[in-house]
Amino acid sequence: MTLPDHVRIVEVGPRDGFQAESRFIPTELKVEIIERLAAAGVRDIEAVSFVHPRVIPQMADAAEVMARVERRPGVRYLALVPNLKGAERALEAGVDALRLVVCVTETYNRNNVGLSVDESLELFGDVVRLAGDVPTSVVLAVAFGCPFEGEVPEDRVLDLARRFVDLGSAELGIADSAGLANPLQVHRLLRRLAEALPGVPKWLHLHDTRGLGLANAVAAMEEGIDTFDTSLGGLGGCPIMKGASGNIATEEMLYLCHEMGLATGVDLDAVRDASRALEAFLGRELPSRVLRAGTREELVARNQNAGEPCRES
Amino acid sequence: MTLPDHVRIVEVGPRDGFQAESRFIPTELKVEIIERLAAAGVRDIEAVSFVHPRVIPQMADAAEVMARVERRPGVRYLALVPNLKGAERALEAGVDALRLVVCVTETYNRNNVGLSVDESLELFGDVVRLAGDVPTSVVLAVAFGCPFEGEVPEDRVLDLARRFVDLGSAELGIADSAGLANPLQVHRLLRRLAEALPGVPKWLHLHDTRGLGLANAVAAMEEGIDTFDTSLGGLGGCPIMKGASGNIATEEMLYLCHEMGLATGVDLDAVRDASRALEAFLGRELPSRVLRAGTREELVARNQNAGEPCRES
Repeated sequence: MTLPDHVRIVEVGPRDGFQAESRFIPTELKVEIIERLAAAGVRDIEAVSFVHPRVIPQMADAAEVMARVERRPGVRYLALVPNLKGAERALEAGVDALRLVVCVTETYNRNNVGLSVDESLELFGDVVRLAGDVPTSVVLAVAFGCPFEGEVPEDRVLDLARRFVDLGSAELGIADSAGLANPLQVHRLLRRLAEALPGVPKWLHLHDTRGLGLANAVAAMEEGIDTFDTSLGGLGGCPIMKGASGNIATEEMLYLCHEMGLATGVDLDAVRDASRALEAFLGRELPSRVLRAGTREELVARNQNAGEPCRES
Repeated sequence: MTLPDHVRIVEVGPRDGFQAESRFIPTELKVEIIERLAAAGVRDIEAVSFVHPRVIPQMADAAEVMARVERRPGVRYLALVPNLKGAERALEAGVDALRLVVCVTETYNRNNVGLSVDESLELFGDVVRLAGDVPTSVVLAVAFGCPFEGEVPEDRVLDLARRFVDLGSAELGIADSAGLANPLQVHRLLRRLAEALPGVPKWLHLHDTRGLGLANAVAAMEEGIDTFDTSLGGLGGCPIMKGASGNIATEEMLYLCHEMGLATGVDLDAVRDASRALEAFLGRELPSRVLRAGTREELVARNQNAGEPCRES
């Protein structure tokens, strides 16, 4: 098992997580969570999406969030942008990098952003030109399976990856948006992408919809991927599509890495505190199991002070 | 990635799952669930535990459950036994195989079954002799970490494994009882066990307490393990120890295997129906994410009949 020494966590809870919540999260709390994550040691935070407020009302205060967040040196504050107008707003807000989501299937792209994939390619080129020195990256969504078209041909993903890199994508995001990937498939697709685009930095965006999130992350690490989108508390998913659950939880990914001796530079405790602040506002438990169960050390400490343990195998 | 062609699911929900429930599950429902699981194609079911009713009241009707279950040809009905008296009752009830849990750390074994590990070794020998032709296997609990002692030396696990095999253990169960294993550790321990005891059939018993259950299962499959304890709905855990969540969910394990092209012989739909029957009785959702989200095929079918999908990456 060959794994990277260091794993880079890109916290996407403030964007992918918050946008899945129907109740508006006050700007103040958004800012607080982003600042807590940066203080926890997260070096990349997908902080907002500059999407039209009518489409995602939760992101209506994106500019204000960016204006109010105290920027911590060494931290990149990323924004998702769906179009040129969004990119303009993001650049005005002074974000450090842009991400643009393109679905690799025509049906999903049409439904998600109202464009054909060719139109998305054209748009991406325009955004790259507009952004200038601000790095812009594509996220290839539904790369492991599409809720509409089912299986996604790997050749399709490879072809689009090449074209977006040619257009100037700084990094390459591969997203299992609907939580349909399995570890074998992750190995296969990432190996082909590594062969096709060896010098291009890649990251993986996984959802834990069917419980395979961390198994897929391990498969990706074995293929040399060292950067993962994760979401505090396992927030995320889709406010509309039933059964689409959250991103892989930041706490679970940190626990996985730390237990395997891989450095992340992120303080798990501090991330959990941020998740708990969110839980307090949302009034419900978030799915992250490490948030519930705690770590190995905590378990041992707890039991050393406790009475009767569990009678089980 | 080398994986087994066929994965054997040992359903432990009726034992490890049910015993974690404080509300008594009627004998009739226990029997119904076991019969549904057998009808679904599960070939090994840990159906009951012959533990003293004072210790685990949920298992007070173990003999009655075994008497009422309609035995399906080709299915093995296993029982957990904590002592010689339990083994006698299990054999009277006509179970197909016995399992005895021994914790690899002295502290946990003392707390769990009130014996030193040496006393458990002696007991195991007595049970094997009593059982005669009925296969008896040890489950080495807390093999990947102990809630009391913390890290568990691998040499300790290997030494005990050898000694129980010498005493006649038909197979060797390795249990991550507290959900503390990580994939690197699983690789390492199983590789050492394979080298030390090459001819001995082994199975893995995993809990998903910290979200690493399926990642650990994949690591084990890569080391040649083809038999896994799983629990319908992800039932299980500990009624006493806070934060100890369930076994890896049968539905998630089936989904993982089937998506990777590994045969299990088990019908996922039929298992889900059994989980739903349990949910109806328990009045709460079980943790299995495949139970919630459904399969890839179902997602595609659902979206082809739906309107606006999810706007997300």
